[in-house]
Amino acid sequence: MVNKIEAHEIGVDLRKLENRTPEFRKINPMGLVPCIDDHGFKLHESHAIMRYLATTHNVADHWYPKDPQKRALVDAALDWHHLNLRKYGSQLVINRVLVKVPAHKNFFPNLGEETRKSLADDASKTLPQILDALELMLEHGKFLHNADLVSIADLSLCCELTQLQDDHKNMLEHRKRITTWMADVKDATNPEFTDVHQAIFNYSKHVEELRAQGNFF
Amino acid sequence: MVNKIEAHEIGVDLRKLENRTPEFRKINPMGLVPCIDDHGFKLHESHAIMRYLATTHNVADHWYPKDPQKRALVDAALDWHHLNLRKYGSQLVINRVLVKVPAHKNFFPNLGEETRKSLADDASKTLPQILDALELMLEHGKFLHNADLVSIADLSLCCELTQLQDDHKNMLEHRKRITTWMADVKDATNPEFTDVHQAIFNYSKHVEELRAQGNFF
Repeated sequence: MVNKIEAHEIGVDLRKLENRTPEFRKINPMGLVPCIDDHGFKLHESHAIMRYLATTHNVADHWYPKDPQKRALVDAALDWHHLNLRKYGSQLVINRVLVKVPAHKNFFPNLGEETRKSLADDASKTLPQILDALELMLEHGKFLHNADLVSIADLSLCCELTQLQDDHKNMLEHRKRITTWMADVKDATNPEFTDVHQAIFNYSKHVEELRAQGNFF
Repeated sequence: MVNKIEAHEIGVDLRKLENRTPEFRKINPMGLVPCIDDHGFKLHESHAIMRYLATTHNVADHWYPKDPQKRALVDAALDWHHLNLRKYGSQLVINRVLVKVPAHKNFFPNLGEETRKSLADDASKTLPQILDALELMLEHGKFLHNADLVSIADLSLCCELTQLQDDHKNMLEHRKRITTWMADVKDATNPEFTDVHQAIFNYSKHVEELRAQGNFF
């Protein structure tokens, strides 16, 4: 890990409902991933986990600054993320891609094809406005909100866009400020960034293969 | 205010697009509410604002505890809120109620009546699972995650449910653990809690009037 925090990683396959076993519910009763067990202290939500690890381990200040105003701006970007980039990014990917992959057939609730299409279109229309807002957050400085060094907010937002990018490269193509920032976040966190995203890159290849076989889209 | 933080409140009417004026964009370039200007420091996102005010003003520790593990649990509840209670609560209220109020006619994107119905149904089916999860968070202790005293997470989640409750009381009727907790949060924050929610209570009355006139639903 970038910050040398020791961890034993356990994979959880949501398609096999491994997050709903009695064993998993001992770590997280609500069946949520990701979650951690830090010597008996159990915590869920990726943002809360990153905040906790950054404040309880020997982690450089820029990841989650102690200065209240700098920290507040990291918090604002993390909070904004949920109902903007994350909501509409997943709305697009789930309704335009994931629901069509045969292996996921029974995983998503049945909303009907027309509704799926409306939701994907709604996300397509909304995401450019969200990317406009992201560009405003990147107006000054190399990283989010005028920062010179990478924070947990850069990491979380960049990770989301990396998942979006593979199927919707055209959305980012002309957004130099965002693509430059993404390259900077990767530079600041590689080789780990590429390593943890490998599963997503492999998945994108799988989708491409399904497309090539003609039984997709 | 409960914590005696001095503030000058400025109302912003979203229906009149007052959040998109050049003047407003000086406070928040992205046009987001709520936002604050604390002697020149500008911040958006309600959770980030509460965290910031709790750590920079003379506020009792229980609102946002300094202990890293207690704080992490408050953060987890706040983060969980966005894509659970907030997402599905607003999905229900927007698609089942707000889009039908004549004054909002042009405010929400046109998703088509069938899609609106599917989304409202999806939210109706999902919310009970979310309320199950909330009950797990209230399993021990008077407030969220075993706490004896109210936190900013209790405030945010209870506020969301208060907005939901008016039109969907039946969802909470048999959930004694949740209704008791809501009463406790109100007790701990009244008279301010009731005061700031007055606009929502008035709005509910307006919706009831429209219903009684028969030009609604």
